[in-house]
Amino acid sequence: MYSFDVPYRIRYADVDQMGFMYYGNYARLYEIGRVEWLRDLGIRYRDVEDAGILMPVYENRSRYLQPARYDELLTIRIMVRELPKARIVFHCEIWNEEGVCIHTGETTLVFLKAETNRITTCPPAILEKLAPFFEK
Amino acid sequence: MYSFDVPYRIRYADVDQMGFMYYGNYARLYEIGRVEWLRDLGIRYRDVEDAGILMPVYENRSRYLQPARYDELLTIRIMVRELPKARIVFHCEIWNEEGVCIHTGETTLVFLKAETNRITTCPPAILEKLAPFFEK
Amino acid sequence: MYSFDVPYRIRYADVDQMGFMYYGNYARLYEIGRVEWLRDLGIRYRDVEDAGILMPVYENRSRYLQPARYDELLTIRIMVRELPKARIVFHCEIWNEEGVCIHTGETTLVFLKAETNRITTCPPAILEKLAPFFEK
Amino acid sequence: MYSFDVPYRIRYADVDQMGFMYYGNYARLYEIGRVEWLRDLGIRYRDVEDAGILMPVYENRSRYLQPARYDELLTIRIMVRELPKARIVFHCEIWNEEGVCIHTGETTLVFLKAETNRITTCPPAILEKLAPFFEK
Repeated sequence: MYSFDVPYRIRYADVDQMGFMYYGNYARLYEIGRVEWLRDLGIRYRDVEDAGILMPVYENRSRYLQPARYDELLTIRIMVRELPKARIVFHCEIWNEEGVCIHTGETTLVFLKAETNRITTCPPAILEKLAPFFEK
Repeated sequence: MYSFDVPYRIRYADVDQMGFMYYGNYARLYEIGRVEWLRDLGIRYRDVEDAGILMPVYENRSRYLQPARYDELLTIRIMVRELPKARIVFHCEIWNEEGVCIHTGETTLVFLKAETNRITTCPPAILEKLAPFFEK
Repeated sequence: MYSFDVPYRIRYADVDQMGFMYYGNYARLYEIGRVEWLRDLGIRYRDVEDAGILMPVYENRSRYLQPARYDELLTIRIMVRELPKARIVFHCEIWNEEGVCIHTGETTLVFLKAETNRITTCPPAILEKLAPFFEK
Repeated sequence: MYSFDVPYRIRYADVDQMGFMYYGNYARLYEIGRVEWLRDLGIRYRDVEDAGILMPVYENRSRYLQPARYDELLTIRIMVRELPKARIVFHCEIWNEEGVCIHTGETTLVFLKAETNRITTCPPAILEKLAPFFEK
């Protein structure tokens, strides 16, 4: 398993009139988590796209355990629990300043060849970087 | 079961650089669907809030079957399959102009008393409007 | 002058914790106004892009006269006061249900050839449709 | 004058199908700049609101000089050029990684007493922190 933490400050733009982060805005946090997780591995997602591979989202599940409020400094924790093949699944936990896990998400992405618009498998460049974390 | 359709035109603001609607923006479509479904029943969500009941999202599942593209005129189809008690589950299908179902979502909301910040059951005003659709 | 009205219902996604539409979300309303104004003229913006012309925003001015609140049904009024040459200027007024003008915006867009990434003049197809409204 | 820099990484959520940051999303960057500028002064905007003062935007001007692209690490530079009275004007410059100023913004906010919904002057707590930067 390979886990990574990214801080996130909640902005006015994120919050609704209940005073909570709008439920659709968590997707942005998952995205930030995934991309910074990749960067930490040594991979820039923009280079993946430049090499002709897109990674659209296929499925997402979110659980809103407790609200996130304006100006809180959250921690986005991203985990990949299995070496990806045709799909990659990112588990996301969001923790608040009091050390409470307030949200969980699970996002499945596929690998798409931009040129042919067809599904493909995880690029070797990503697999190579990930493999050491999944060896016994 | 009570089903309702709402049209939605995809805007530039919704689309990412793949040319697809950004995965986090579907939550807005579900919201539009739910609120217009309620309005069609004769209930304005803002009146529900004014009466002291909030309806935060507890859980959401989304399946991205095919991309949605800029300027497409989508149909948001909202269904409630069970009479709500402590929770209400909205099923959402999104159809494109070619009559293809490109996305499904399932959103569970709870009822919260604003004053006490405690979970409550579905307000009678909503149940009364819904009940006739669930009688045999 | 050519003026056009588009209705817009404010969504939960649009509103901040003051209970007002977030100031950055008015840009979406201007966009909806511009694109529906073009569609009313017989031009689909997506066809303009398919023909190789992009219309990025160069300048924007917004005046927030009164707040817009959740679930209000606004009217977006779009006006073009001068026949475009190298630039097109859209004037936007936003009216609420009480008939009050709560917001004004002024957005200047340029015409860009996608292939060369260079500035160009307004496409003849748009000028032809607009010209009759500016004749004395 | 009091100037402050904040880094901002452009996200997929921010970018449109031209591959540029959507023009409405710059408002979020200004907001981040303003709030971090205040925090650097020793003021948390959430405490200002808790003390009963809201700061809604009254006017905004934006100039889009060059596009901002996905994954670029921008610098948001915030400046306040005059000691605020009834209004506070934030000047914003956005610089890209190549050291080019790609965008300028100018946002005017007012001070509103939440309880009475009436305009007021800049709270003394903010003036005290700012005053030393404007003395000769």
